[in-house]
Amino acid sequence: MIRFGIFGAGRIGRVHAANVARLPGARLMAVFDVDRTSAAQLAASWGGEVRSEEAIFESRDIDAVVIATPAETHAALIERAAAAGKAIFCEKPIDKDLRRVRHVLDLVTARGVSLFMAFNRRFDPSFAELRNRLVAGEAGKPEMIFLTSRDPAPPALDYVARSGGLFRDMMIHDFDVARWLVGEEPERVFAVGGCFANPAIAQYGFVDTAVVMLWTPSGTIININCAMRATYGYDQRLEVHGSAGKLALDNRYATSVSMTGSAGSQRELPLAFFAERYADAYIRELTYFVECLENGIRPSPSGEDGFRALLLAEAAHRSRDQGTPVSIDGVLGTL
Amino acid sequence: MIRFGIFGAGRIGRVHAANVARLPGARLMAVFDVDRTSAAQLAASWGGEVRSEEAIFESRDIDAVVIATPAETHAALIERAAAAGKAIFCEKPIDKDLRRVRHVLDLVTARGVSLFMAFNRRFDPSFAELRNRLVAGEAGKPEMIFLTSRDPAPPALDYVARSGGLFRDMMIHDFDVARWLVGEEPERVFAVGGCFANPAIAQYGFVDTAVVMLWTPSGTIININCAMRATYGYDQRLEVHGSAGKLALDNRYATSVSMTGSAGSQRELPLAFFAERYADAYIRELTYFVECLENGIRPSPSGEDGFRALLLAEAAHRSRDQGTPVSIDGVLGTL
Amino acid sequence: MIRFGIFGAGRIGRVHAANVARLPGARLMAVFDVDRTSAAQLAASWGGEVRSEEAIFESRDIDAVVIATPAETHAALIERAAAAGKAIFCEKPIDKDLRRVRHVLDLVTARGVSLFMAFNRRFDPSFAELRNRLVAGEAGKPEMIFLTSRDPAPPALDYVARSGGLFRDMMIHDFDVARWLVGEEPERVFAVGGCFANPAIAQYGFVDTAVVMLWTPSGTIININCAMRATYGYDQRLEVHGSAGKLALDNRYATSVSMTGSAGSQRELPLAFFAERYADAYIRELTYFVECLENGIRPSPSGEDGFRALLLAEAAHRSRDQGTPVSIDGVLGTL
Amino acid sequence: MIRFGIFGAGRIGRVHAANVARLPGARLMAVFDVDRTSAAQLAASWGGEVRSEEAIFESRDIDAVVIATPAETHAALIERAAAAGKAIFCEKPIDKDLRRVRHVLDLVTARGVSLFMAFNRRFDPSFAELRNRLVAGEAGKPEMIFLTSRDPAPPALDYVARSGGLFRDMMIHDFDVARWLVGEEPERVFAVGGCFANPAIAQYGFVDTAVVMLWTPSGTIININCAMRATYGYDQRLEVHGSAGKLALDNRYATSVSMTGSAGSQRELPLAFFAERYADAYIRELTYFVECLENGIRPSPSGEDGFRALLLAEAAHRSRDQGTPVSIDGVLGTL
Repeated sequence: MIRFGIFGAGRIGRVHAANVARLPGARLMAVFDVDRTSAAQLAASWGGEVRSEEAIFESRDIDAVVIATPAETHAALIERAAAAGKAIFCEKPIDKDLRRVRHVLDLVTARGVSLFMAFNRRFDPSFAELRNRLVAGEAGKPEMIFLTSRDPAPPALDYVARSGGLFRDMMIHDFDVARWLVGEEPERVFAVGGCFANPAIAQYGFVDTAVVMLWTPSGTIININCAMRATYGYDQRLEVHGSAGKLALDNRYATSVSMTGSAGSQRELPLAFFAERYADAYIRELTYFVECLENGIRPSPSGEDGFRALLLAEAAHRSRDQGTPVSIDGVLGTL
Repeated sequence: MIRFGIFGAGRIGRVHAANVARLPGARLMAVFDVDRTSAAQLAASWGGEVRSEEAIFESRDIDAVVIATPAETHAALIERAAAAGKAIFCEKPIDKDLRRVRHVLDLVTARGVSLFMAFNRRFDPSFAELRNRLVAGEAGKPEMIFLTSRDPAPPALDYVARSGGLFRDMMIHDFDVARWLVGEEPERVFAVGGCFANPAIAQYGFVDTAVVMLWTPSGTIININCAMRATYGYDQRLEVHGSAGKLALDNRYATSVSMTGSAGSQRELPLAFFAERYADAYIRELTYFVECLENGIRPSPSGEDGFRALLLAEAAHRSRDQGTPVSIDGVLGTL
Repeated sequence: MIRFGIFGAGRIGRVHAANVARLPGARLMAVFDVDRTSAAQLAASWGGEVRSEEAIFESRDIDAVVIATPAETHAALIERAAAAGKAIFCEKPIDKDLRRVRHVLDLVTARGVSLFMAFNRRFDPSFAELRNRLVAGEAGKPEMIFLTSRDPAPPALDYVARSGGLFRDMMIHDFDVARWLVGEEPERVFAVGGCFANPAIAQYGFVDTAVVMLWTPSGTIININCAMRATYGYDQRLEVHGSAGKLALDNRYATSVSMTGSAGSQRELPLAFFAERYADAYIRELTYFVECLENGIRPSPSGEDGFRALLLAEAAHRSRDQGTPVSIDGVLGTL
Repeated sequence: MIRFGIFGAGRIGRVHAANVARLPGARLMAVFDVDRTSAAQLAASWGGEVRSEEAIFESRDIDAVVIATPAETHAALIERAAAAGKAIFCEKPIDKDLRRVRHVLDLVTARGVSLFMAFNRRFDPSFAELRNRLVAGEAGKPEMIFLTSRDPAPPALDYVARSGGLFRDMMIHDFDVARWLVGEEPERVFAVGGCFANPAIAQYGFVDTAVVMLWTPSGTIININCAMRATYGYDQRLEVHGSAGKLALDNRYATSVSMTGSAGSQRELPLAFFAERYADAYIRELTYFVECLENGIRPSPSGEDGFRALLLAEAAHRSRDQGTPVSIDGVLGTL
């Protein structure tokens, strides 16, 4: 039985709380949120009690913490959790600053605690199935990979301002998927982008729409496109063109109903957003995390994976700024 | 909070137990199974304790029972539950004998308890969406309805022998869907069928593959086909041809992955069987049942719906035996 | 080089004329139509000259005739063509009266001319591919076959009145496909139908929407549905459920474009009607007919196939009238 | 009536010859090929006679020429046709050298003849439909465009050597489609590529697999990927992500048949290669060219469009060589 404390009672915190509560082998002991009412509601729904941050770290009846607070608080919470010897289940990112991330990871390593980065795609049945078949060689050597990741609507401007921008906050998922699929580290990045959905985003030096190319030592070309606004909803697709064939992953839908009338054939939009699209992944990643803890296995993706995905995001950000390809080693050299 | 006792710790019993355990507002108090070990395992996983049938009916801490035992025990359990004043959530059928069903329903009515027949399709998001759009008039007046319902493989022969045959045990779901979609009672039935999957089934006077036509007072033609063996898995589809268009419902899949190689494009089989295909429906029907109890609403589909679906199955069975169309009123007259 | 005379300069006559003109190995010599202007236009577009019926039958420079006139003239034209020793390419039906058909076929046999019934589905690439794979055993023994055949809108009422009704004029194509797929003669037919698209059709004893079941000596169940009005256009589908799998044939579209916006994903309607949907089939059937003539091969489907398809239509008509299954032998016995 | 001479009796020459022969309003008068036997066979099949190049240019009974010879002969043939006052229907490219192309176009302009570049995609019903809907504003402002264009297998090495490489010989089609869709000239190009299908291609400084990004003055990001080898056949797709929605174009198939068995659901590969995939486009482009000539309209795409597409190919080639983005104006400045 793994006993959990959860930091953050917002949208994603509630998802994790419900999953902890439903998982045999896990128990929700405590919840913290700066908004005490939210924390209390979460505890009322899914068990556990409201505690302070301090209390959670000091609790002897808590084995692991879920960090689901705003991104800027992650690094400090990880450090305190590591110091307290708690296993850590953390939403991306560790931090938007690479040097800070490195510092946090060194501390985590020193303390020897488990740090799991909750990159949800890896636990989605479709992404996992595609990767299994790719790794098994069904498509041969991957030569070109295309990742599409579009949100229904851009977040609030102040969220964008704080988030570090599309590359660090949104495309970071795709960078992680890309690394996980190819099993090697991209060496160069080139990024193009613009502000189509909300021109005000440009004031922060960020974009809301971007296409990024990466290429790996073995030659695989990776092509990622993201948009913060797709009128047609949450668009999550993936295609691998390999030497032996093409593996593709399409969107998922709430129902399989279609209507055909005089105006043609119509079907519904894909599942609305991440909470719906990756509902299964959230259950599976938590289940996996608990199994790792129970069996003394280091969970993956790790903090190091979090660092590497952020590194690609940093490189993409700089490439877009500079209008030229950027080498990953070059970015590492500047840290 | 609705407190449940569950009869039956087999496949479907376990599904319902897990859903009761996970549903805020419901609690699993007791489990009964003739196999005491299965009952104990279920209780260990999802809470509650093992009790005898008698004890469950006498328990003051149980508000409702789930009946998920073999079909031949349903009628007696419903009667005892009704006598004990428990709300009843029952898997189909009530019984395979129509007169017995009528007798049970009379008793339930007399006792005033809620009897919910768990016809899962009605609670599946896709079936529910299609019906909502049909009822809203999107496809106009339904003129022809096609229901496809095929199982991966026939059940064990002794199960078939006891079940009352394909029409009563399998197509009964489609009869219920048909009634629910059109909102009127079919008046005639014609059935054709054969034994393709397992010729031994013929010895019981049953079939393993059948096509049935029904037509309603307003003229809608309903066409149902079932097969106990589809090499390609569990095939659940529906199409409504209406005066204003066509509403269709396709299969559901575990992933959205496809592979295209030199042999063409390939995608996986549909979700394997009822537990996977209707997993959401099982959650939704239990949630609905609990809400009904909490709000003093009679749940639907009712025992009467169970009777009506079985009546169509009986008519189909007779039609296939006799090789001619059979009128529903005629079947009613023989009871 | 096969030299053709064409009877009928209407829609389907123009299709055949264009195909004759474009086919190396065929030449259009003469056209007849009761509307001399139509005939002249056809000749102007695709070659040949306007001639009288008499002149075409007497022409020494004509090897074969295409009969694309209204159905009620087919029988007499076939008889005269047979008497004149011309090879015959005839649109369905030979006649709507089975005895008349038998008489015509006896004459054709006596004269020894080739009579080809232009059942277009057999020459469609998709139908042909499905049948090839079925015959090759890919789906195993066919157990249930479902044919869907719906028109965008009902024809003019006087056409319906003359045509012999949906079974003889429209579903006859599906009866032919069914026979061709299973390679055996259905032995019983049961038909249900109604007038949904145009209630005025009922005055002729005909229907505009129908579902028909047939079963064959080996047990295959065939299920055909037709509607004279589908708001969503021309709907031509086929599914074979066999002991080893499912072969399916879907609609065809003019383009592969789809649009996804806030209202969902939308794609166009299928190809509009028979001239568009079976454009390739019309070319292929004529090419085949010419090759048969050049190589001294009896073309298939033959007049006998035309008779057999009409026999099933007659049985369906009677079954629907009587409300009971009808045996094919029984219908034959009444001729 | 437009009277044609055709240069080239190879694969694409035969396609055009058949279309000329079948088009009312066009007539095939003469054929030239360095292989006199091929020329004679073409003439025997589709009409006309074998003539020398010289004779075709001097023929008074020839209004227009189709240039379907190897690419390196195009420029000289265009010049001679222009000098002879013939209208010109030319396969891409004009030449692989931009300066030579400019010179040829100047001559064509001076002579005032019509020069039509046969970019087939523009005349494909699906590409045309997508563009019509895009231009009509259905998807709003195009923000990202994705073009996929993959061949089943790489051509012979000596062909690759002479062709100018993937960008100039294959992706040139996609550059043309991109310009045609957005209606503005891309200003920068970035290209990545490698030799996966045939490493020997690298010796010529060419690639067989590439991803190219272009961006336009208004900000549209265009992403093109090509591969000379796709084990799954000829892959031609297009997706436009716009401010109001997504327009997509999928592959086309010879049949609509699918097979579902125990290994999943399977459908055939797309139409095999350009002759099959763009069969309709070849008919439509010739029909359009004839109509232009008959009505005194300048056909489009023009020679200038050919120049512009090649300019983008040149820029892509240089970008890939240099590993950096290349500006179109920069390339123009080097001519």
